[in-house]
Amino acid sequence: MSLEVFTKIAIVGATGAVGREALAILAARGIPKDRIVPLASERSVGMCLPYGDDAVTVRALTHEAVECCDAAIFAASADIAKEYAPRAAAKGVVIVDNSSAFRAHPDVPLVVPEINAQGIESSNLIANPNCSTIIMLLALEPLKRAFGVREITVSTYQAVSGAGIEAVGEMYNQSREKLDAKKLISRVFAEPIAFNVFPHESTMDPDTGLNGEESKMISESRRIWADPALRIFPTCVRVPVERAHSQAIIVTLDEKVTKSKLISAYEGAAGVSLADLKSGPPTPLKASGRDNVLVGRLRMDPSGDPCRVGLWACGDQLRKGAALNAIQILDRKGLSGHSTRGLRTAS
Amino acid sequence: MSLEVFTKIAIVGATGAVGREALAILAARGIPKDRIVPLASERSVGMCLPYGDDAVTVRALTHEAVECCDAAIFAASADIAKEYAPRAAAKGVVIVDNSSAFRAHPDVPLVVPEINAQGIESSNLIANPNCSTIIMLLALEPLKRAFGVREITVSTYQAVSGAGIEAVGEMYNQSREKLDAKKLISRVFAEPIAFNVFPHESTMDPDTGLNGEESKMISESRRIWADPALRIFPTCVRVPVERAHSQAIIVTLDEKVTKSKLISAYEGAAGVSLADLKSGPPTPLKASGRDNVLVGRLRMDPSGDPCRVGLWACGDQLRKGAALNAIQILDRKGLSGHSTRGLRTAS
Repeated sequence: MSLEVFTKIAIVGATGAVGREALAILAARGIPKDRIVPLASERSVGMCLPYGDDAVTVRALTHEAVECCDAAIFAASADIAKEYAPRAAAKGVVIVDNSSAFRAHPDVPLVVPEINAQGIESSNLIANPNCSTIIMLLALEPLKRAFGVREITVSTYQAVSGAGIEAVGEMYNQSREKLDAKKLISRVFAEPIAFNVFPHESTMDPDTGLNGEESKMISESRRIWADPALRIFPTCVRVPVERAHSQAIIVTLDEKVTKSKLISAYEGAAGVSLADLKSGPPTPLKASGRDNVLVGRLRMDPSGDPCRVGLWACGDQLRKGAALNAIQILDRKGLSGHSTRGLRTAS
Repeated sequence: MSLEVFTKIAIVGATGAVGREALAILAARGIPKDRIVPLASERSVGMCLPYGDDAVTVRALTHEAVECCDAAIFAASADIAKEYAPRAAAKGVVIVDNSSAFRAHPDVPLVVPEINAQGIESSNLIANPNCSTIIMLLALEPLKRAFGVREITVSTYQAVSGAGIEAVGEMYNQSREKLDAKKLISRVFAEPIAFNVFPHESTMDPDTGLNGEESKMISESRRIWADPALRIFPTCVRVPVERAHSQAIIVTLDEKVTKSKLISAYEGAAGVSLADLKSGPPTPLKASGRDNVLVGRLRMDPSGDPCRVGLWACGDQLRKGAALNAIQILDRKGLSGHSTRGLRTAS
């Protein structure tokens, strides 16, 4: 395993939903716990977090704590990333940042390994894309490679864990309040999430009318696919699901296709599994804990446009949408062998 | 109130979700209970149903029971409608059928009163459109009138009560099972509905890949708008919400528009309310129990197509999507004064 080249891997924001998922994946990969450095803010120091059947203890986030590692996954805020990541990267730590801090930075590659891993060599600091963007692009990458993509309309059905562990608690608490005929208490979201749906809670741009999640899907997809004119019209919506985002996607391709050509395009595609009659349609429950994005309901435009098709995708946004993608980036960096401090020191 | 001309109104399928909603609306309108004839299958006979602060008792569905009324709302299956409605209509009973039995029949008007009430005079049997179709068309009618509609992409977030009262019970039961860490039991739906979403459960056409709900949205919208070439690409999805359907709609208009032109188009529009900063975005919880479809998030295409806009609509599918629309059709028939048996006999 290429990750093996890293002797110490920091998880910054280890107590959060993505941090915990990263720990679960690293433990399942058999990385010894003494090579894991879970970091968080002062109030979480000393907290024990599950690490496979074992546990790891949270330490305080400091520059030194990050910089004594040779790799770090940042699963914290953009402010934390801006404060700690560039300095550590300059000192040779390989960093994958899950925040939006560097996603638009021209010197920081924005990477989905199955799609644009080639940019990965150029920098010690790599940005992990927004989860909805990763899931949508993985679902569409086989179609892009086979036929080219001209235009995307996408509606999301996003799980609450994308808003953090507190949001999951709020959903379950409100659900119980509703079942017990009590008043629903909202702290995390402005609207009740139990037995309700609402437009994504990220800040709305008053000029464009886009919320932050929609803006990210547009700008990050254009960057990852290196197609600055790509047309995307997203609607991002929160639904009462614990984890895994779903997406209803209508895509206009550059070429005429048929249903069988569509299916062929997914043969052997990385990071994506096509649903069949036996599996039934993808759902967030089925996608939870899965590495691959599940794609189903491939169908032609009912009005007869031979370039236009619909599909339904579900992907675990904590896993492939965040922690797993970050670890896969570290894998690639490890494989490439360059710029890890351990190897540098040895050379 | 124009409904007043009817001396006896049958509710066929009174024990179902739409039947109960019709009773609630009629009671709120002040129609005396002795003018209400709630009908259902043998196993429900004698059941008491709420009628405002009072109650009504379910009687057996027979031809005679329907035909002794001068109006009937059918909120039952297509098979029931086919068996009872044409015969009663031929005898002068004004019938609004909520099933899909007659929606494509050339002699049966398919009516949303705010949109195409003009066809209502020609027949004693009138079909109530599919709930998702009603909500989408009401949300778009102001744009169609002002600018013309060329193409629609729509993703739905549909409440479980659209699948009947048992489905609502299943959602709440499964929610409690999940909260109590028990196994989720599915009887109504093939997939768990608690804390999950899935493509609409209606039968999938193996040729087109469309489920039944999507096919209805296409064919019924074309008929109601009298635009057989209208392009609609729908994705219909069930979400764990008790009532009110939500829709993410992207629409291409025949004319270039601006945000302010869009807002102006909704001024004074019937059956639809535009959300503002004070109300916040429409949600199914906000739309539940409301007569109007709530529309929000009016926004221009982020890629700059001046004819293409997005919006977010929520409407109570049991109310405006079914029972209220049916009662509004009866209102119009009553207003028109013609073909009700009571008036006929008197003339």
